[in-house]
Amino acid sequence: MTITALPTGLYAEVLSFYGHQMQKLDGRDFAGYAATFTEDGEFKHSPSLPAAHTRAGILAVLEDFHQKFDAHKIQRRHWFNHVAVTEAPDGSLTATSYCLVLTVHADVKQPEFGPSCVVHDVLVRGEDGELLLRSRHVTHDHVFPV
Amino acid sequence: MTITALPTGLYAEVLSFYGHQMQKLDGRDFAGYAATFTEDGEFKHSPSLPAAHTRAGILAVLEDFHQKFDAHKIQRRHWFNHVAVTEAPDGSLTATSYCLVLTVHADVKQPEFGPSCVVHDVLVRGEDGELLLRSRHVTHDHVFPV
Amino acid sequence: MTITALPTGLYAEVLSFYGHQMQKLDGRDFAGYAATFTEDGEFKHSPSLPAAHTRAGILAVLEDFHQKFDAHKIQRRHWFNHVAVTEAPDGSLTATSYCLVLTVHADVKQPEFGPSCVVHDVLVRGEDGELLLRSRHVTHDHVFPV
Repeated sequence: MTITALPTGLYAEVLSFYGHQMQKLDGRDFAGYAATFTEDGEFKHSPSLPAAHTRAGILAVLEDFHQKFDAHKIQRRHWFNHVAVTEAPDGSLTATSYCLVLTVHADVKQPEFGPSCVVHDVLVRGEDGELLLRSRHVTHDHVFPV
Repeated sequence: MTITALPTGLYAEVLSFYGHQMQKLDGRDFAGYAATFTEDGEFKHSPSLPAAHTRAGILAVLEDFHQKFDAHKIQRRHWFNHVAVTEAPDGSLTATSYCLVLTVHADVKQPEFGPSCVVHDVLVRGEDGELLLRSRHVTHDHVFPV
Repeated sequence: MTITALPTGLYAEVLSFYGHQMQKLDGRDFAGYAATFTEDGEFKHSPSLPAAHTRAGILAVLEDFHQKFDAHKIQRRHWFNHVAVTEAPDGSLTATSYCLVLTVHADVKQPEFGPSCVVHDVLVRGEDGELLLRSRHVTHDHVFPV
């Protein structure tokens, strides 16, 4: 049950991609976040909601979802951990990662935590060789299969 | 007091190893987790318990320990941070990492946290060049030396 | 809005640097932590305090700040996440990272959390090619701009 090593540089490239990508999301740069998907990308950010499709569709969903958060009073942070990447024969990458959502309220030092999630991504190369998300599905740890 | 750089690719390989390894543990694939140790590996997962030895011994300890958790009601997540790797002259690696245990209860969005730990690993190469744990010792931050 | 890939090995080198550096800080090796800055480095660890300058100045500030923590009763841990690195034309690196402070009290399994921060670093190469911090500015997520 060996853990296969990836080509040199690939794993760090994925981590670096997530670093930039998730700072865009938490910084409310939703257009920038949507642009990290392929043009026909799929984003299912909650088990209870249908998936969004295309960059325009993802942007619309994010803008709608974040209307419930007041940017002047709330700072969200999506932390990732234990990114596990597998390379498929066609060169696409499957990445499964832990994600914990932190919500910081103005003037309150201790963040609010939750949910704890698992992020299931498929990454591919764009025209310039850059990484892009073809799909992202998020599951919630506190929602157990019936 | 310089921080020495590791050979290219090595640090990312260790992070990638941990990503896969700890997802096996939290996914209750205890045989898969035990297989990330050398055949004669040592695992001391709690300061108050004796170390387990060999893959079979590690597997037995994990199955016993996890009987107290009901997989239908609890999802555990072992987060890592600040992995600090040092290469020994014989090629073995010493890796010291922060670890925080999250316990997610069914239908409860906010995880339970603790303990905060330090994981002390020694990694070596297996027959196929893959990384394996020769030993893992875990200490708990809230247990102070007397 | 492409996320540019860094030279192979560079991103992992930054993560490895942080792993060692922050373990020095949390292990109260303040001289070791100060030595990860350039000789004329700048460290602004709190929005409400003036920046410290030079290794000697950084060491003095840290020793003073940590007098309020009793090492026999408190273990602090500075977790990092989503390190986002950008390379400038002059070879210096800008790294923006999430940071969450954990404070562990003796005999208490659950850590205390906060503040959630963003760490803004500029890294350069020292005489031996090693990474050093030229400056570090820390902002707090719960302190919103007026």
